[in-house]
Amino acid sequence: MLTLYDYGDSGNGYKARLMLALLDRPWRLVEHDIMTGATHTPEFLVKNPDGRIPVLEREDGSCLPESNAILWYLAEGSPWLPAGEGEADRRLRADVLRWMCFEQCSHEPYVATSRFILRHLPADSPRRAELPVRQEKGRAALAMLDRHLQGADWLAGGRYTIADIALYAYTHRAEEAGIPLAP
Amino acid sequence: MLTLYDYGDSGNGYKARLMLALLDRPWRLVEHDIMTGATHTPEFLVKNPDGRIPVLEREDGSCLPESNAILWYLAEGSPWLPAGEGEADRRLRADVLRWMCFEQCSHEPYVATSRFILRHLPADSPRRAELPVRQEKGRAALAMLDRHLQGADWLAGGRYTIADIALYAYTHRAEEAGIPLAP
Repeated sequence: MLTLYDYGDSGNGYKARLMLALLDRPWRLVEHDIMTGATHTPEFLVKNPDGRIPVLEREDGSCLPESNAILWYLAEGSPWLPAGEGEADRRLRADVLRWMCFEQCSHEPYVATSRFILRHLPADSPRRAELPVRQEKGRAALAMLDRHLQGADWLAGGRYTIADIALYAYTHRAEEAGIPLAP
Repeated sequence: MLTLYDYGDSGNGYKARLMLALLDRPWRLVEHDIMTGATHTPEFLVKNPDGRIPVLEREDGSCLPESNAILWYLAEGSPWLPAGEGEADRRLRADVLRWMCFEQCSHEPYVATSRFILRHLPADSPRRAELPVRQEKGRAALAMLDRHLQGADWLAGGRYTIADIALYAYTHRAEEAGIPLAP
């Protein structure tokens, strides 16, 4: 059975949990509290030297970190990431990855990190000073998503893919980052 | 023929250029000076609403942004990204993507951005204040790569893949980011 090392409040972990649920695969959860250093123990650093959750552990003990890599590994060949050899599927996969890269570079550092600062750090944390810039860039990322989704239901290829899962994870919690979704 | 919209000094663009050279595919370069707003014109924003290079334009005019998505699209089915359906190739692709995600989240924002601040912004830019933290995190990313490559020639699957191309791009220019490679 697959094991997911995760932290309940993590949007990155949520991506993997949603995918496992969609695929209806049996899996086992091992929670690690990222606020108490549980992902920086020698035991955990063997699973992911980067000291982050989520990590997917396979039946043979091999481990895969990085939420979007976990999504890709789980979804390949399923309706959420078609594996066809033709040019249409190649383009679909490239578009999926394009939006997952956008999530990692232009969305997560702003929406997710703002949310982390607000939810998990004390009210007098000096990191609160980062919020104005991070929230502004978060709003810009959401505006770009919004424009792209004008007249489209899904981010890539006109169908529900792991790109939508990757972007939904923190977008649907953006209010907790101090970024209203109403606009 | 494929067209690459790029900026000569970009490590992200370098990834696509190296891949096109390895594949020996004919392509055409269109340079855009990122320092003069050439990627924020209405014409360019149609190609990439995010206003960044590189962008790969296909023969039919469709465009693909994001350097790592371009690498994936170009390399799929080649020796640099095997397309087999078996579990070994699935794991290889997941590991490749894991390192590309690491590059985007834990390497590029520190190594590439430090280099950008040092090479492209004036010596009195207030952004120089970001350098100590960014360089420290850049050194941590390089140290993690170094540990992973102890006794291994390549990042994923014991072979040369696009993960190595993605990480090589800014790593081999890390000295220009003020991060010595000697350690």
